[in-house]
Amino acid sequence: MIRFDLISAVPALLSGPLDHSIVQRAKEKSLVEIYVHDLRDYTKDKHKKIDDYPYGGDPGMVLTPQPIFDCISFLCASRSYDEIIFTAPDGKAFTQKEANSLSLKKNIIILCGHYKGIDHRIREHLITQEYSIGDVVLSGGELPAMMIVDAIVRLLPGAIGDAGSALSDSFQDDLLEAPVYTRPANFNGWEVPEVLRSGDFKKIKDWQDQQAYERTKDRRKDLLKDDKKDY
Amino acid sequence: MIRFDLISAVPALLSGPLDHSIVQRAKEKSLVEIYVHDLRDYTKDKHKKIDDYPYGGDPGMVLTPQPIFDCISFLCASRSYDEIIFTAPDGKAFTQKEANSLSLKKNIIILCGHYKGIDHRIREHLITQEYSIGDVVLSGGELPAMMIVDAIVRLLPGAIGDAGSALSDSFQDDLLEAPVYTRPANFNGWEVPEVLRSGDFKKIKDWQDQQAYERTKDRRKDLLKDDKKDY
Repeated sequence: MIRFDLISAVPALLSGPLDHSIVQRAKEKSLVEIYVHDLRDYTKDKHKKIDDYPYGGDPGMVLTPQPIFDCISFLCASRSYDEIIFTAPDGKAFTQKEANSLSLKKNIIILCGHYKGIDHRIREHLITQEYSIGDVVLSGGELPAMMIVDAIVRLLPGAIGDAGSALSDSFQDDLLEAPVYTRPANFNGWEVPEVLRSGDFKKIKDWQDQQAYERTKDRRKDLLKDDKKDY
Repeated sequence: MIRFDLISAVPALLSGPLDHSIVQRAKEKSLVEIYVHDLRDYTKDKHKKIDDYPYGGDPGMVLTPQPIFDCISFLCASRSYDEIIFTAPDGKAFTQKEANSLSLKKNIIILCGHYKGIDHRIREHLITQEYSIGDVVLSGGELPAMMIVDAIVRLLPGAIGDAGSALSDSFQDDLLEAPVYTRPANFNGWEVPEVLRSGDFKKIKDWQDQQAYERTKDRRKDLLKDDKKDY
């Protein structure tokens, strides 16, 4: 059982993806508990404000430290957390390796940034890990937070029907996946490669290995480099 | 006005993030139209099936070509699309540069993968661009699709309150952003850097530039390399 506490300025964004499909089934099977916390419930401001202008005169609004500090303090008073994650474009890349390692944890907080960001003092003093999901700016950390949850949940034993399916995924062996095909063998004049229909499983495995290697070499040479393997 | 057509096997996953905050306001301002299409509405299978076992005996299920082909054909009969995007872990990295360029388009289809993937013939024959949001496997392409929409929508003129805010974001100039701070100047004994409270905007700008550079050098040296600038 893994527990996620997601903290957000716009908690309505944290619905949909967490309430259907694999994540929903994992919740029903008690593999995961997900709690969403609204920053506005923790503000001491009389107008329920949770953001303010940035120092230095820049445009945009910044989440103030008090509600975040109080929400995290409240959670940490009840249990011990393995990680307090902040999703930020300048964080560490969130890779399969990170998902694998987080899937062994018990309690994880994910703080979602919003507006222009959060007060830097929170990042310095409270956050234990900062993750980025790519060199692109989003309107909030909610989508990245749900991605982190999704990537971890599908690794939990019992979360997806066939455990072998997760193991043969891209990145689990530093190779992209071979192309996949299903019925019909001929669609619109486009044929499934003959080898896959041969019934010769040794030949099929060799073809898939070759395709995975070629595809990785072609699209993501960096994954093949030995010095990159531990990144 | 930009139009997105999102195609999914589990359309319920495409809610929440598209119905609130910046994306919702952009819809209300008619800056963007978002249509979600359920693959099950396009299957000719009498049991409404949209997936089947992969050729080659591997675990997992693969989305069959017919419903995808029919859905894309139906859309393309009504208007011309600039891109037909598939979200896949072995696609091209979706960066700020890609978001910038897509924000100038008119009509975009995003096909979300699910289960073990989609029949490769669709990728070969119909898809014009494949994007990845990181070296991590998710249970579907819905979260990446919503990230792509979100990253693009916030660039549309009028989508966010202050246009200057988007321009000073990370990656727009190949630099990470400087730390941001807001009131109070002293929180919990943690102080906002004095320079930001000086009122000397020249000094503030210099400090921010220096911080952005140091932070990029420290966390993402790769962004600084000249040969990487066009990547």
